Amino acid sequence: MAITRLPSAGFSITIRIAVTADASSIGRLTTSVGEAGAIVTALDVVDSDPTHVIVDLTCDTADAGHADQVVDALTALDGVDVRKVSDRTFLLHLGGKIEVTSKVALRNRDELSRAYTPGVARVCMAIAENPADARRLTIKRNTVAVVSDGSAVLGLGNLGPAASLPVMEGKAALFKRFGGVDAWPVVLDTQDTDEIVQIVKAIAPAYGGINLEDIAAPRCFEIEARLREALDIPVFHDDQHGTAICVLAALTNALRVVGKRLEDVRVVVSGSGAAGTAIMKLLLRQGVGDIIAYDREGALHRGQTGLNSAWQWLAENTNKENYSGDLPGAIRGADVFIGVSAPNLLTGDDIAQMAKDSIVFALANPDPEVDPREARKHAAVVATGRSDQPNQINNVLAFPGVFRGMLDAHAEEFTEEMALAAARAIADVVGEDKINPTVIVPSVFDSRVAPAVAAAVRAAAHNPSPLPAADPGPADLPEIAANASATP
Amino acid sequence: MAITRLPSAGFSITIRIAVTADASSIGRLTTSVGEAGAIVTALDVVDSDPTHVIVDLTCDTADAGHADQVVDALTALDGVDVRKVSDRTFLLHLGGKIEVTSKVALRNRDELSRAYTPGVARVCMAIAENPADARRLTIKRNTVAVVSDGSAVLGLGNLGPAASLPVMEGKAALFKRFGGVDAWPVVLDTQDTDEIVQIVKAIAPAYGGINLEDIAAPRCFEIEARLREALDIPVFHDDQHGTAICVLAALTNALRVVGKRLEDVRVVVSGSGAAGTAIMKLLLRQGVGDIIAYDREGALHRGQTGLNSAWQWLAENTNKENYSGDLPGAIRGADVFIGVSAPNLLTGDDIAQMAKDSIVFALANPDPEVDPREARKHAAVVATGRSDQPNQINNVLAFPGVFRGMLDAHAEEFTEEMALAAARAIADVVGEDKINPTVIVPSVFDSRVAPAVAAAVRAAAHNPSPLPAADPGPADLPEIAANASATP
Repeated sequence: MAITRLPSAGFSITIRIAVTADASSIGRLTTSVGEAGAIVTALDVVDSDPTHVIVDLTCDTADAGHADQVVDALTALDGVDVRKVSDRTFLLHLGGKIEVTSKVALRNRDELSRAYTPGVARVCMAIAENPADARRLTIKRNTVAVVSDGSAVLGLGNLGPAASLPVMEGKAALFKRFGGVDAWPVVLDTQDTDEIVQIVKAIAPAYGGINLEDIAAPRCFEIEARLREALDIPVFHDDQHGTAICVLAALTNALRVVGKRLEDVRVVVSGSGAAGTAIMKLLLRQGVGDIIAYDREGALHRGQTGLNSAWQWLAENTNKENYSGDLPGAIRGADVFIGVSAPNLLTGDDIAQMAKDSIVFALANPDPEVDPREARKHAAVVATGRSDQPNQINNVLAFPGVFRGMLDAHAEEFTEEMALAAARAIADVVGEDKINPTVIVPSVFDSRVAPAVAAAVRAAAHNPSPLPAADPGPADLPEIAANASATP
Repeated sequence: MAITRLPSAGFSITIRIAVTADASSIGRLTTSVGEAGAIVTALDVVDSDPTHVIVDLTCDTADAGHADQVVDALTALDGVDVRKVSDRTFLLHLGGKIEVTSKVALRNRDELSRAYTPGVARVCMAIAENPADARRLTIKRNTVAVVSDGSAVLGLGNLGPAASLPVMEGKAALFKRFGGVDAWPVVLDTQDTDEIVQIVKAIAPAYGGINLEDIAAPRCFEIEARLREALDIPVFHDDQHGTAICVLAALTNALRVVGKRLEDVRVVVSGSGAAGTAIMKLLLRQGVGDIIAYDREGALHRGQTGLNSAWQWLAENTNKENYSGDLPGAIRGADVFIGVSAPNLLTGDDIAQMAKDSIVFALANPDPEVDPREARKHAAVVATGRSDQPNQINNVLAFPGVFRGMLDAHAEEFTEEMALAAARAIADVVGEDKINPTVIVPSVFDSRVAPAVAAAVRAAAHNPSPLPAADPGPADLPEIAANASATP
């Protein structure tokens, strides 16, 4: 039931091929690639002689197995010699995707004397005397740590720190590209909550913010709560808050499209981990009508025992009718389905049972909770996390601008007001004249997004009120626990 | 007795001044600055009208107090209005000296798909399956952590992590400028040995090497020893090994100048901390005749009690005649004096008591153990750590090339062979036709140095043998302790 993966640039290969130089030889190559289901994106002549030509054929494939099929198809052709296959994604990652560059030229002795000894000593003394000057005189002003223990890398699971590094480097590249933020990957060879908290506290002096990334739930909740308590710089778990901001932005515009109000709608959320919990908290804060929260155990409802504190809180603050049945039953008559869980939980027929003008966000990646093409037959608005479908809900819309704004405001914490302001800013970038069922969020390449988010976050920073932690953690955090249960 | 500090670019200021536009007004400004002992380096007209001119006058001063005197002298002139004084060193440090830049352009969806999701997932999986691929597919290949706890920042003392950051950023800038190495500052808000070891182990997956910096002795010895034992990437304490390499290189050439052999000379070392201990170990390994080691307590000799293990080892392996007198007595008849300690311990008369053709390295910064102008009256070769004197011994000669070589060789540890090879390479850059008493080391801007050091280190990496740790630390490190006491 998984939807077919289409060829994409993420699986682009370049194949070096020697062929006989007859009139039809190149045509046979491209035809063969096309018949194998791949898309030719470039054809470059590398060398030639009177009877042969060597070309680099570049094509997008659907996945690694498909790439092998394409190469096999070419190899099977008469007069074709496949010399070498390069994977363009791997080529791009060779040697890493970010670098550290000097902002000072160090051409001569004078520049060395100012940037390093003896001149640097005065700068050190100035910071020792007035620690707040670190934000003026060091990288702290513009630098964020992207921290992961590699325990929940993308949808791939617990791969550990080294294998998570390509994601964190990519994140750092996105931070710079979209937010002008210097971000540095901090991948940790430990998955112990106490150790992670201790390490992030220790490395914090160099950073103006902490972005937690791909840390498994429920550990991520306690780590975030304890770091928020301990540090005087903002701590943001992108899998939670970045996702929640983008979902609220998309939902805001989807509701505009169908003409419903948030306080009137019933939402079913599949997946009550890091992302789902944060989404529900933010929707509740914004005044959503009702939510039913699902996880592997079923609907979270009052009367269940043995729930962790995050789920207990959700059970008490959602599900007004205390429904305890299955997921298809829950979405019957519901206005909104939000999936941040697992592929293929629902069918088009299930979607057909939702309320009129229903909204479906099926965000499991790469395979959504319901085939979006089936969902579109019955729902008014459908969004996914996929880049090859309309309405891609992508955290890149949020985190660069959120940190840009927090750094510029010298914010000491990330607040719920910032999250709400960021979501509004993203939604508002899609003008009233542009919005429609296939355009509820701006493109990730829309250059207006990050500045708008940053401005909204800066404004919100001047009227702060702490965001309750999703999981207050154990008893050593009484104040946060008290806040959390008092909200909303 | 301190030598006069000369004006330097490290204390350069720019003064914005409005003066009446008569023929002599600018001349009076520059004369006044010159009389105050500063050096005018630039004079830029900012604005003018028929009767006035506004100029930015830039000059090098000797220190912050001197800069104030210069401004006062200008303010006292008739018809002169001092508008604003900018400190060029502080201007250069504003916002930090390094940044994180993306090596991938991220212009469009295709590039995003390869650098981040979905393409990055395959790179993560490849590393999870073959961890050694992290050196190929991530920043680990070219990236070094510059780790400090801020406990011994330059000669300034225990300033803590935030105030050490300008130094570590500067170090990162030098790493890139001279070695093409991506270095990242890791300043730690802890000075606990166990915590520092644990944290560096945890952050290590992203790095191809660890450069320890400005960590106080004797803690630095144990941290280094334990990290060397725990990690499969090289650990290098620049204050120890970088200094030792540069001193051995300089001594090699100084001995060439005076025509003596290392195995025949007696060396007195003042300062038995991180740098002094490493220098002595390396000289012993290279076969020096004899060494007498000094610290605050006096000469290290057999029969002393209560020495820490590093000093105990030195007492047993130096000082053949078991001399226990004062420092001037020790240098009487000595061939070489190496100071890495404190200002103004010796006079020219003390130096006059050394052997014929003596060598003096007075490296305390900014004020050397002996005034180099006095020392030069009696010694054949004099070197300092100062950039305004001949023969500056500067670690920049060593660390960029050492790490360049270790990264290129995929070295798993830093070895004594590498240190010796690096020292030889630095010494050999000064050709036989160039060497003289005022040129025993190459300029830090000599572009041949880092490649020569890197090549030597790469070659040495293929014949490794571990460098003994300076201080084996407590009883939980028995193997290293055994190594250390068996060497050299």
